[in-house]
Amino acid sequence: MEEFTVVYNRDKGESFVKSLKDCRTMNLYFIGSTETSTIPGISVAGASPKLTLYTPACDVEYLVHGKPLSFDVIPVTPEGIPTPALITRVALMLSKLPYLIVDTGSYIEPKIPRVSLPSKCTGKRIDHGEALPYDKVKELYCQSATLAKLLSSSCDLFVIGESIPGGTTTALGILVGLGYNAWGMVSSAGPNNPHKLKKSVVKRGLTNSKLSIEETRKDPFKAVSALGDPVHVSIAGFLSQALSEGVKVILAGGTQMAAVLAIAKHLGTDLSRDITIATTRWLINDQSSSIIDLVKMISPHVPIIAVNLDFSSSPFEGLRYYEKGYVKEGVGAGGTTLASLAVKNTSLQRIVYEIYREYHRLVKSGEASGVTHS
Amino acid sequence: MEEFTVVYNRDKGESFVKSLKDCRTMNLYFIGSTETSTIPGISVAGASPKLTLYTPACDVEYLVHGKPLSFDVIPVTPEGIPTPALITRVALMLSKLPYLIVDTGSYIEPKIPRVSLPSKCTGKRIDHGEALPYDKVKELYCQSATLAKLLSSSCDLFVIGESIPGGTTTALGILVGLGYNAWGMVSSAGPNNPHKLKKSVVKRGLTNSKLSIEETRKDPFKAVSALGDPVHVSIAGFLSQALSEGVKVILAGGTQMAAVLAIAKHLGTDLSRDITIATTRWLINDQSSSIIDLVKMISPHVPIIAVNLDFSSSPFEGLRYYEKGYVKEGVGAGGTTLASLAVKNTSLQRIVYEIYREYHRLVKSGEASGVTHS
Repeated sequence: MEEFTVVYNRDKGESFVKSLKDCRTMNLYFIGSTETSTIPGISVAGASPKLTLYTPACDVEYLVHGKPLSFDVIPVTPEGIPTPALITRVALMLSKLPYLIVDTGSYIEPKIPRVSLPSKCTGKRIDHGEALPYDKVKELYCQSATLAKLLSSSCDLFVIGESIPGGTTTALGILVGLGYNAWGMVSSAGPNNPHKLKKSVVKRGLTNSKLSIEETRKDPFKAVSALGDPVHVSIAGFLSQALSEGVKVILAGGTQMAAVLAIAKHLGTDLSRDITIATTRWLINDQSSSIIDLVKMISPHVPIIAVNLDFSSSPFEGLRYYEKGYVKEGVGAGGTTLASLAVKNTSLQRIVYEIYREYHRLVKSGEASGVTHS
Repeated sequence: MEEFTVVYNRDKGESFVKSLKDCRTMNLYFIGSTETSTIPGISVAGASPKLTLYTPACDVEYLVHGKPLSFDVIPVTPEGIPTPALITRVALMLSKLPYLIVDTGSYIEPKIPRVSLPSKCTGKRIDHGEALPYDKVKELYCQSATLAKLLSSSCDLFVIGESIPGGTTTALGILVGLGYNAWGMVSSAGPNNPHKLKKSVVKRGLTNSKLSIEETRKDPFKAVSALGDPVHVSIAGFLSQALSEGVKVILAGGTQMAAVLAIAKHLGTDLSRDITIATTRWLINDQSSSIIDLVKMISPHVPIIAVNLDFSSSPFEGLRYYEKGYVKEGVGAGGTTLASLAVKNTSLQRIVYEIYREYHRLVKSGEASGVTHS
């Protein structure tokens, strides 16, 4: 199997990847929380609904230090499947690509040096239709754009990942709030995508917010303020500024990145070039979501690339679960792997081998103790 | 006049500068506060002793946005002489070098995206001999080292500046605490260096802290904890990690950088190569301080470079004051100018011309209203 497959806008995607060799690259992982993730059944990006609030901080602490600092164990699903930050960490270590964490509103502050946006704030439950104060939304967008400006002159490529449990539900909220018929199209970190629950949460939010599409199409910040979260709008601000500075961007994530594209588009960003979505094969193969249809609907010129990560021959049960539809993507796993392959010429085989070794280390040290070592 | 002069370790300094051309560069400005700056007479880096606490945040807000956000006017001395961030901003704009702000403990949070160290904290008055909790000192060092690690693989050169009013007094505290006879050698942002006052503050701190040199030479964090501040130890951590990753470093500052060198040295950092101090001609010409003697005493292999900024033909009185010994250095003014010349091949003449234009803009917009336009 090829290391990656361009699954949408093939020619453009392939030439994009070719252009990445030896690019001066900066990876950024935007973290934030939304209390939407504590609605039972919405998110499995944590061992319990409450614990999902701690996942973003633990994800990035693990990324930087190889273990979380705020908790004893790495984030897992209720079944004990480990965070995709595992993949990201290995891809970063092998490629030696530099990176920064950007805190847009993590429920707890990660105990690592990270870029802090002054207006960072945790999002409220979107079913109430008042997720974030309007001013904060706008400020997050502008502050992220400022950050992109500070960094752009030294970079040819930004790789942007996210960690926000509940993020596919807020992405759905943003998309629907902006008038897209995205019902049933966003992904999930579990094998059973709770579309019905997500729909009812977003519908309640829509009703409570009294949003009109006419209004949000004129001012997308209103959709985010009612039904969004701090992460997507921050990434949109960073993206828009980066593209206008002539820096290429890999949006390293799944269906959530469609919400980023939608915000940026309705704020007037030209999405016709220098941008691609890169994710994992698991996300693309997911029958319960459709990133391609989302992108077709929002910004049909953006290529989508699947990195062909495959854990079916893993000696560890916890990783083999990825083949059954668990986790799939997050913390920029797919896109960081692509950058590692395309910018630094690492090999996917080597990355997968090192992921097994890293997982073994975690099991041995007890930091992935939720999972049996089969 | 040459654009810059290597005033100490000439051959080494000259080849260092030559090696900088087209280096992948990241500038970092470490900000923090010490309540030492509120002791009347200690610091003129603010219109009043109390206002010195706000200077670091305003300096970097101005750097990023061209105007402070937390206050209406840019930081000035009691006489209305503008912050050296003016020089830094122009050098950054002309060179388009990327940069980040690192908050180690600013009294107020700057309203810009910036790297936040988890253990950031404002320093107490050092005359009490308990400036910072020991654990915080150690954590700041380690967290800054982590930051250097995240960024090092994409950089050939770091330029590190500081903004901390009262910083020469805390630098004196750190140096004396580490056993250096540095009395009367640190600089000041005013023409009348209050050596007597600084000495009495540090002496009281020494007495109150009951420090022994034997102890601090074994564990330099103790000297910082008793008599230091959050900025110098953070820069030392960043510096040590950067050098060990093979990245060159310009310490962009005056006599305070001697305290950075001292901390790093006594923690075992090899300071024999890849590092230089770059500052302004005003600092080197200052009769009331002696950076060369400090460096000779601490790390005799480190070159010192003076950038020959000269405002004597400025149409603005506020800038001509720099020629009379006001301000001299700060916010990485000298070193950022050197990087702009050496990495990006800008010209000093152009930089000075643009500083005049920038100052004119500030006077017109009222953001440097403390100073008359002569």
